[in-house]
Amino acid sequence: MTDIAMITAAAARLAGHARRTPLLNAPLLDKIAGRRIFVKAECLQWTGSFKFRGAWAALTALPMQELTRGVIAYSSGNHAQGVAYAASLLGVPSVIVMPQDAPAVKIANTRAYGAEVILYDRATQDRDALGADLAARRGLTLIRPYDEPMVIAGQASVGLEIADQAAETGIEAADVLVCCGGGGLTAGVALALEAKAPHLRVRPVEPAGFDDTARSLALGSVQRNAATSGSICDAIVTPEPGKVTFPILQRLCGPGLVVSDTQVLQAMALAFAHLRIVVEPGGAVAMAAALFCADLPATVICTASGGNVDAAMFGRALAG
Amino acid sequence: MTDIAMITAAAARLAGHARRTPLLNAPLLDKIAGRRIFVKAECLQWTGSFKFRGAWAALTALPMQELTRGVIAYSSGNHAQGVAYAASLLGVPSVIVMPQDAPAVKIANTRAYGAEVILYDRATQDRDALGADLAARRGLTLIRPYDEPMVIAGQASVGLEIADQAAETGIEAADVLVCCGGGGLTAGVALALEAKAPHLRVRPVEPAGFDDTARSLALGSVQRNAATSGSICDAIVTPEPGKVTFPILQRLCGPGLVVSDTQVLQAMALAFAHLRIVVEPGGAVAMAAALFCADLPATVICTASGGNVDAAMFGRALAG
Repeated sequence: MTDIAMITAAAARLAGHARRTPLLNAPLLDKIAGRRIFVKAECLQWTGSFKFRGAWAALTALPMQELTRGVIAYSSGNHAQGVAYAASLLGVPSVIVMPQDAPAVKIANTRAYGAEVILYDRATQDRDALGADLAARRGLTLIRPYDEPMVIAGQASVGLEIADQAAETGIEAADVLVCCGGGGLTAGVALALEAKAPHLRVRPVEPAGFDDTARSLALGSVQRNAATSGSICDAIVTPEPGKVTFPILQRLCGPGLVVSDTQVLQAMALAFAHLRIVVEPGGAVAMAAALFCADLPATVICTASGGNVDAAMFGRALAG
Repeated sequence: MTDIAMITAAAARLAGHARRTPLLNAPLLDKIAGRRIFVKAECLQWTGSFKFRGAWAALTALPMQELTRGVIAYSSGNHAQGVAYAASLLGVPSVIVMPQDAPAVKIANTRAYGAEVILYDRATQDRDALGADLAARRGLTLIRPYDEPMVIAGQASVGLEIADQAAETGIEAADVLVCCGGGGLTAGVALALEAKAPHLRVRPVEPAGFDDTARSLALGSVQRNAATSGSICDAIVTPEPGKVTFPILQRLCGPGLVVSDTQVLQAMALAFAHLRIVVEPGGAVAMAAALFCADLPATVICTASGGNVDAAMFGRALAG
C-alpha cells in the first residue's frame, strides 16, 4: 500500500529528474469562471504529462537485475511515453502496448523515446492479457498504469508540490480537482494532501459517459462504463476504477464531477488564450469542471494533467 | 543608464509579483534541432509576455504623486497588457494607444485589464506624437516600451533568471537568442548576463524584412526598416533600433540572426508539440533561430517572449 513514507521516498528519487511544474493562474480566467482557478500545469512535465513521475518512481524502485531486463507497459499514450522516456534515461529496453486508435502523436513520440511499440485493437483484444503474456515471454517487468502502489507514489509528488505551492500562494481552503481515469493521479494526490494539506479536498473529474469513478463513489461500489472508447478524452478512458486506487478515493475524495466534451474543448481554448499552455482533452476535464461546474468553493486548484494532443483536435477546440 | 544596481533593485521589486518562468526543454525537440535547446517560457508570464516585468518595474519606480495620476503607453499589444495589468494591480488608471491592426485578443485583453484603449492607424499616424500629446493633456506619465532605462531594468530580470537557471541546469557555454523588436528585452538580458553570466553571449533575432537591428549591428550604425507593418511578428516590428537600447546591444551582443515567417510558424508548431506552450509569432523568432539557423553552438537558450496569439494565426502554424 502506498503511504506517505513511500511517497516521500519516491519524491526524493524524482528530485532533479521530474520537473516541478508551475501552478498557473490568470486574472482574466478568474473573471470568466467567477472564482479563483489555479492550474497545476503537468502538461509541462517531461513527455507532456504527469505519467513520467510514476514511471520514474516505479522503474527506480526495481531491483537492478529486473530493471536491466527491461520493462513493459500498456497505455493509450501518456503512461507509454512516461515509461519509454524513463527507460531510455536509465538505459534499459521498453516495450509499450498501445491501442491502435491512440493519437498519432503519442504513438510517434513513444517510438521516438526509443520504445518498441506494439499496437492492439481496443474493441477485440484484452491489453492486460496481451501485456502479461509479452512480459512472461521476454522476462520484462510489467509497469501498470495506475493499479501499482509505486506508480501511485510517484504521481503523489504532484500532490506534494500542490501542497507547497498552495502554501506559497497563500491558498487556505480549496477543492483540488483531478483528471481521473484509472485513478492513479487522483489517489496519489489525495494521499499526499491527506498528509501535507488535509484542508485541501480532492475531487475526481471525468468526461460524461465515462464517469465510472463518480458513479462508483456515489453508489459505494465499483461501477463499469458502458463503452470503452469513443471519448475525446482518450487519456482517461478506463473500464472501471482501479482495484488499488478506488479504496483510496473512497476514503479520501469528495464526490466526483462530470463534464461534457463541449466544456472540455472550451477549457482547452481558455487555457490556450489565458494560460498559454497546450492541454489535451483528457487533461482538461478538471479545468473544465473548475470553470463550469456549480457548487465549488471560491478557490479551486485543478490539474492540467497532459498536453499530448494532435493538431486537428486542438484546432477543433480553438474553432469552438 | 541601466546598470546592474538598477537591475537588482528592479528584480527585488518584481519578487513575488512577476512569475519566475520555467526554462523548458524536450529531448525530441533537441533531436529535431541537432542541438540542445532551452526555452525561457515568458509566454507563461502574467499577461502572456515578459512586458509585465518592465511595466511593473517602471510603475513601481514612479513617485507616488505621478503614479496616482495614471500612466499611458503605446504598444502593439504586449507592452499594452503589461502596463494595463500592472496599473490595475497598483490601482491607478492607464491609457493605452494601440494600432488598430493589433491582434484582436491583445486589444480585448488590454481592455479587460481595465485600461482605456485608444486605437490609431499605423500607416498614417505617429504613435509617439499621439502618446506625448495625450500624456500632456491628462497629466499621465508615458511608459515607453523599450527606450526607457527602468523598463530595460525590469526586462533584465529575465536575464538574471536565465543566469540562475543555466547554472542550475549545468549549462556552461551557450548562445542566448532573444526576440528583438525595440531591443528592451535584448538589452536587459545582455546587461544582466554581462554581470552574472558573462560566458553566455546574447544574439538578437528578428523576422526577415524587419531586421533593422541585425543590419545596424553589422554596419555599426542605426538602420531603418523599409516597411512598418506586414509581418506576422506584430510584437517585434519597430522602425529602427532604440536610441537607449542600441548602444547596449552594440557593446554586448553577437551578430543578429534573421528567420523567415515559415520558420517562425514551424517553431510555433514544434513548441506546441514538444513543449506544450503557446508562443506568438514575434515570441517564436528566437526559437526558430535556435531550431533552424546554422553556426550556433551545441547548446542554445532562447526566449519564448510572448504567447498572445489569435486562434486563426495559431491554427495557421499548426496546419504547417
